[in-house]
Amino acid sequence: MSGWVAVAGLGPGAEDLITPEVRAALDQATDVVGYIPYVARVAPRDGLTLHPSDNRVELDRARLALDLARTGRRVVIVSSGDPGVFAMASALFEAVTDDPPDIRILPGITAMLAAAARLGAPLGHDFCAINLSDNLKPWDLIERRLRLAAQADFAMAFYNPRSKARPDGFAQVLDILREECGPDRLISFARAVTTPDEMLRTVTLAQATPDMADMRTVVIVGNSATRRAGPWVYTPRSAP
Amino acid sequence: MSGWVAVAGLGPGAEDLITPEVRAALDQATDVVGYIPYVARVAPRDGLTLHPSDNRVELDRARLALDLARTGRRVVIVSSGDPGVFAMASALFEAVTDDPPDIRILPGITAMLAAAARLGAPLGHDFCAINLSDNLKPWDLIERRLRLAAQADFAMAFYNPRSKARPDGFAQVLDILREECGPDRLISFARAVTTPDEMLRTVTLAQATPDMADMRTVVIVGNSATRRAGPWVYTPRSAP
Repeated sequence: MSGWVAVAGLGPGAEDLITPEVRAALDQATDVVGYIPYVARVAPRDGLTLHPSDNRVELDRARLALDLARTGRRVVIVSSGDPGVFAMASALFEAVTDDPPDIRILPGITAMLAAAARLGAPLGHDFCAINLSDNLKPWDLIERRLRLAAQADFAMAFYNPRSKARPDGFAQVLDILREECGPDRLISFARAVTTPDEMLRTVTLAQATPDMADMRTVVIVGNSATRRAGPWVYTPRSAP
Repeated sequence: MSGWVAVAGLGPGAEDLITPEVRAALDQATDVVGYIPYVARVAPRDGLTLHPSDNRVELDRARLALDLARTGRRVVIVSSGDPGVFAMASALFEAVTDDPPDIRILPGITAMLAAAARLGAPLGHDFCAINLSDNLKPWDLIERRLRLAAQADFAMAFYNPRSKARPDGFAQVLDILREECGPDRLISFARAVTTPDEMLRTVTLAQATPDMADMRTVVIVGNSATRRAGPWVYTPRSAP
């Protein structure tokens, strides 16, 4: 039997948000490769080898998966959320060389859409998704994208808003947003959505502080028409 | 037993992309409300009333669901893809009045992420999602967003690129993109992804023609670093 690599999205955390397609791939796998906390979400079983690895070694992980598949193994690279959104799918293609094995990307529920669902419908009109980590891009570009996105009146979802390595970046993001969008714009912090640690909070930009986000938080900023309806936050389908 | 409304995403088409959470809601429902082709994806059974309705009556549909839930019915509003992305979740909140019933939004695999997975990883860096229908917003705003998104070097996903009512809009979109991004930028057309009618095609903007898209197509435009790897299209994780 020939080997393959599937890059699978485990969704945001809840078991009942894992697609049957991903379940089937995990059931057929001989090897699971991924970042330690994501591999920990896969139940061990006979015949399945787990290969947990640390953060920031995405290319090594991709090469390991490709090498294993070339020897006939059936390898699932696990990502949180969706593998195509700030996750392992791009890293795999960066590592692909000539004559790659069979590759499939299996989509999952990405964090911003799980967060949006728990909050209401804040991404119900045109929106953008920005990774706020400056690990792989210059800070200037993040700032430029924020300003252009605000000028386009996109709703915005931010991944990786804050980490110990970048304590000040998110404070700057909030300053830029206040400058571009004004103090009354709604901003939602959705932490660890669909897990027992879930926390949801919506405030105005004037009220927002950097400590409302950490690395488990997805941040969603509304467009100029985003509003509340009871406990919910939503963006109308019509343009403002 | 008190009634509720769940707005559920059925994903792009394949049965094995429907989450267990959505399956459970459909199993518990007494009523399913939605656009005709989406309701047709739900298997009839005893005790389940189907309420298919036509396009462009989203608010009527939302009010029907809320009214049914107030009488104790368990109502699922079905959307294709994810209900929070250009779908029924925002319409429901627009229709909510005081003292609403229990409401839950159940996320699904949205078309752009299913398309991205089939293509490779074209949305693997910062990106935006734009609904190209000018049904609910002025054309000027669409054009403005396209130009700002291109200037931000976002990858872009377009929903509803083309319809019989707007035969010329998508030709204008391609002209704007060629102007802002140059002729060599990659553009992918993903039609009816994960269904038997699936068609995938990637060309340069210079080669793109309006007839490559219809209302079942999601269009994905790469950023300035998006490239091919064998049959795949991906956007590197690092900024260009």
